[in-house]
Amino acid sequence: MKNILDSYNNINDLKKMSFNQLERFAEDIRKLLIDKVSKTGGHLASNLGVVELTLSLYKVFDLEQDKILWDVGHQTYVHKILTGRKDKFDKLRQFGGISGFPKRCESKYDIFETGHSSTSISASLGMARARDLSKEKYHVVSIIGDGALTGGMALEALNDVGDRKTDLIIILNDNQMSIGKNVGGLSTYLSRIRIDPKYNKFKEDFNDALRKTSIGNGLADSIRKVKSGIKQILVPGMFFEDMGIKYLGPIDGHDIKELTKVMSLAKEIKGPVLIHAVTQKGKGYKFAEENPDKFHSISEFNLETGKVSKIGGETYSNAFGNSMVKLASRDERIVGITAAMRDGTGLSKFSQVFPNRFFDVGIAEQHAVTLAAGMAQAGLKPIFAVYSTFLQRAYDQVLHDVCQQNLPVIFAIDRAGIVGNDGETHQGLFDLSYLSHMPNMTIMSPKSMGEIEYMFSWAIEQNFPVAIRYPRGGDHINLKEQKDYIKGKWEVLRSEGNIALIATGKMVGTAIEVADKMKAMGIDLTVINACFIKPIDKKLILELVKREYKIVTLEDNVIHGGLGSLILEYINTIEKDNEIKVLNLGFEDKFVPHGDVDVLYKLNYLDFDGIIKSIVKII
Amino acid sequence: MKNILDSYNNINDLKKMSFNQLERFAEDIRKLLIDKVSKTGGHLASNLGVVELTLSLYKVFDLEQDKILWDVGHQTYVHKILTGRKDKFDKLRQFGGISGFPKRCESKYDIFETGHSSTSISASLGMARARDLSKEKYHVVSIIGDGALTGGMALEALNDVGDRKTDLIIILNDNQMSIGKNVGGLSTYLSRIRIDPKYNKFKEDFNDALRKTSIGNGLADSIRKVKSGIKQILVPGMFFEDMGIKYLGPIDGHDIKELTKVMSLAKEIKGPVLIHAVTQKGKGYKFAEENPDKFHSISEFNLETGKVSKIGGETYSNAFGNSMVKLASRDERIVGITAAMRDGTGLSKFSQVFPNRFFDVGIAEQHAVTLAAGMAQAGLKPIFAVYSTFLQRAYDQVLHDVCQQNLPVIFAIDRAGIVGNDGETHQGLFDLSYLSHMPNMTIMSPKSMGEIEYMFSWAIEQNFPVAIRYPRGGDHINLKEQKDYIKGKWEVLRSEGNIALIATGKMVGTAIEVADKMKAMGIDLTVINACFIKPIDKKLILELVKREYKIVTLEDNVIHGGLGSLILEYINTIEKDNEIKVLNLGFEDKFVPHGDVDVLYKLNYLDFDGIIKSIVKII
Repeated sequence: MKNILDSYNNINDLKKMSFNQLERFAEDIRKLLIDKVSKTGGHLASNLGVVELTLSLYKVFDLEQDKILWDVGHQTYVHKILTGRKDKFDKLRQFGGISGFPKRCESKYDIFETGHSSTSISASLGMARARDLSKEKYHVVSIIGDGALTGGMALEALNDVGDRKTDLIIILNDNQMSIGKNVGGLSTYLSRIRIDPKYNKFKEDFNDALRKTSIGNGLADSIRKVKSGIKQILVPGMFFEDMGIKYLGPIDGHDIKELTKVMSLAKEIKGPVLIHAVTQKGKGYKFAEENPDKFHSISEFNLETGKVSKIGGETYSNAFGNSMVKLASRDERIVGITAAMRDGTGLSKFSQVFPNRFFDVGIAEQHAVTLAAGMAQAGLKPIFAVYSTFLQRAYDQVLHDVCQQNLPVIFAIDRAGIVGNDGETHQGLFDLSYLSHMPNMTIMSPKSMGEIEYMFSWAIEQNFPVAIRYPRGGDHINLKEQKDYIKGKWEVLRSEGNIALIATGKMVGTAIEVADKMKAMGIDLTVINACFIKPIDKKLILELVKREYKIVTLEDNVIHGGLGSLILEYINTIEKDNEIKVLNLGFEDKFVPHGDVDVLYKLNYLDFDGIIKSIVKII
Repeated sequence: MKNILDSYNNINDLKKMSFNQLERFAEDIRKLLIDKVSKTGGHLASNLGVVELTLSLYKVFDLEQDKILWDVGHQTYVHKILTGRKDKFDKLRQFGGISGFPKRCESKYDIFETGHSSTSISASLGMARARDLSKEKYHVVSIIGDGALTGGMALEALNDVGDRKTDLIIILNDNQMSIGKNVGGLSTYLSRIRIDPKYNKFKEDFNDALRKTSIGNGLADSIRKVKSGIKQILVPGMFFEDMGIKYLGPIDGHDIKELTKVMSLAKEIKGPVLIHAVTQKGKGYKFAEENPDKFHSISEFNLETGKVSKIGGETYSNAFGNSMVKLASRDERIVGITAAMRDGTGLSKFSQVFPNRFFDVGIAEQHAVTLAAGMAQAGLKPIFAVYSTFLQRAYDQVLHDVCQQNLPVIFAIDRAGIVGNDGETHQGLFDLSYLSHMPNMTIMSPKSMGEIEYMFSWAIEQNFPVAIRYPRGGDHINLKEQKDYIKGKWEVLRSEGNIALIATGKMVGTAIEVADKMKAMGIDLTVINACFIKPIDKKLILELVKREYKIVTLEDNVIHGGLGSLILEYINTIEKDNEIKVLNLGFEDKFVPHGDVDVLYKLNYLDFDGIIKSIVKII
């Protein structure tokens, strides 16, 4: 049969298609997705799940003026195919190629970038309110996964959506999964709806109501007549109704006819509406249907067998997972927490061996951190395994609930540094900067996978918060493991010449290789492993400064606020007083208790007297 | 009548009291609260609202082993009175005196510090799970306000609570308020429950059920018999039931008899339970009942009139509020957003003049930021007014949703620097550090209140994110206003001698006073107003360095990652290559797009070649 996709140009073509053609078109799109992703790797299962949903949306809504947001953005491959990028999938997620997420610089149809989950209801509500204030007329639609819906900010947004009667369409793409199986009370609730006998009753009522209505022709008028029909439709979603949001569903997310009908109905309803569409992750590709987790984000694979082409080597995530099982066998206090990232963080085995000590809280990093704080308060040793970029969501909880109370929570920060193909929204380039200014925090990084176990073993024995960061993937170079740690003490790996290269984590391997190459050039380097990013090894730095070493710092983090910055700030304070060129006055690295403002400035030497004394010293 | 509080020693005394005595005791406690807070200032209305709730809790639960968490912690004055601190209220919130929040160093009964809201369900669930794993037996109770319940992390926690059948008691202290009137769909839902006719039916059923049960005597057995009774009780709270949490209520939160009965019942129920207690903020003090907002956090006031003793002068918050009204009159694109802080941030007048352009989203900073991002995408100029300490909650949203897309959202950051009496959890000492490493962000700070309007006026004209930070209170010194701004250009206020004091915001006034005092000592200072914290004025710094000035930086923020650190890092890079003592290698201040890991390191000069070239340069 003729491939519809080959001759597809733009949305106008789609608008003209019959339901029959759309169904065939869906098959073409699936073929392209499976074929291309098998060669480049990428997010497959979620995109296979939204083919009909995307086609229906773009049939019903007007992309030139309506605003459609995808949450999370990795389910926008179909969207990209439909909006002028079908020929660009050969370079998907490659440098210079198209992104695996919506990118505003890539297309005018990518209106909002959604790399982290649960943001779309907030953003779309913002757009809808802007529309109303500007007296414009267009629809705003947010498509959110049932996993993303467990994120706190999505629930904050739902609460606000219900506050004013803003017209907004939320499509709940319910595939019963986050990246792995979805968890939590909401998830249980959604499955109850799905199997509810009212579901069938709804279908009858709904079809009946629609039959009595002539869609597209005087719909606004006749919509009033179906109100009683809608009321019955609404019954299963009382949770959303309670929040002040009209509920339509559940409906089959692969039935284009039904989808377009409900979407058309939603367009006419005043106030916020939620359409509950039930989809299947991996739909249409046997292996992905059977293993949606594996095919969530996958590297190149064989089309016929579904097997990943290149088996990757050992990774930090694996090393962490194995260490967890070992350490937990020896210490009953250890528990593992993940925010919907069991497999990604390497905790699968741990979750099987210690199901009672494993907690997947859903996409809920804030809750995960404070849950850990509570556990630590009650005597456990909680380890929260999380990607660097996602821990950003819990900045305040790390600072306020963990560091301020100095509770022994351990953060296993995976994917620190460059993560690669996922791009801007997923790089782990900020954690050193956002963690190192938190009083009471200790930050470490292993220079090789073999050190993971020793480092966590050390962390577990401490009675303060410890963050251990490590990169995506594995080691490029074999380095002898450091097995014992003393808080703030660095490891000198090579002591030559008068240039000291201080590196941390993954960059230590690079530093050694740099030193080797430079030796070949006749330049000797001292190489130091900053296994602690905080506290830094002041004694060692002092020694280097005294001996007039030139110091080079090397980290896979933004420079400002990171390791290099900590070292520089310290060096800046150890000059002889009258040689200091820059004197930084401000608050030291500790929490400041309550009291009168003036008293607190004085106590921190930031009143006149304190400041004058500091300045006089350097003159 | 004899004052019970005078002879009160500890919880054991409370345990022995009859309901009658408890009611009289409640009155004594109220008297103490009103009297003491009228002299020291503090959180009054919320504490008056929880007198009976606290007494009932401590009657029913065993403080020596049960864990009770108060959310938010400013409602723990009664708790402090009951746990050994009744004589310490003269120095409430003063330096060295008791804190206005739970403090672990203050009492063993303060088990968890809760300065920011919505944390208690997460923390208590952590404790409950720790208890079960350690096979211990005690109750964990979390008291959370209906305002705090709208915070995303509380909702994340509710979702997780419903996932396993952990025994946990949540008491929803529903006073229909955050700090101001509560907002959102949940709030509407709760009021619907309160007026629901089922409420009365519940009471009958419940009393009936209790009558058939002999509380305290074989309750565990007979509880099964009242299950059908409970089912009916549960009806009003389907929202919570949907999440897998048993709902009891609503009940009168000032009726000690009823409270203790329901709490006793909750102790026996397996799995998570939520008790919905309806209280009145300000209860028992006429002025506070009438004006709970005003008496939420109040300074010293006259007992007889309820009038605040000292009328404060003009504040930055007021200046901001007035500017908002002015600017919004001229520019229709301007909208104001607050997260339950309308009055505190100075937006009251704006909310009255422009009700359609004012958005109070509840205690939901994450949502507030991304809502603003959505509005900016759609052409508005959203200004999110928020305290420095609370913006911490939205770190990821500022980075991921605003900065990464370079959207023109304006952050009005109030209470930056030391806030004083609220203490550790509320100091605004981190914002420069957590914002300045975000690519695309511009950060400003006015040196006087008069500049607020000009600064916001400038910010509105930009097409990138701008954060403007300012302190609690007003000015101590009159400084001539700067009215025009050029991005990254600082203001030289005084040009004398060869020491340059670079200060920002509130500290500029201090710098001028320091310069005056030092002049009298015979030492001249150049004083520079770093009105932009990011970007810094590189041209000016370069000039100072060339002329061999000594540079002193002054800021009301932690030093690491702040203004001084930015200046130091820059100066460190402008030495002649071979004079550089410290070379910081890492990622520059920009987002890194997708691509292979190795490609991205190379592009950022962090591969062997790049690193070697950088090192060779400084030799």
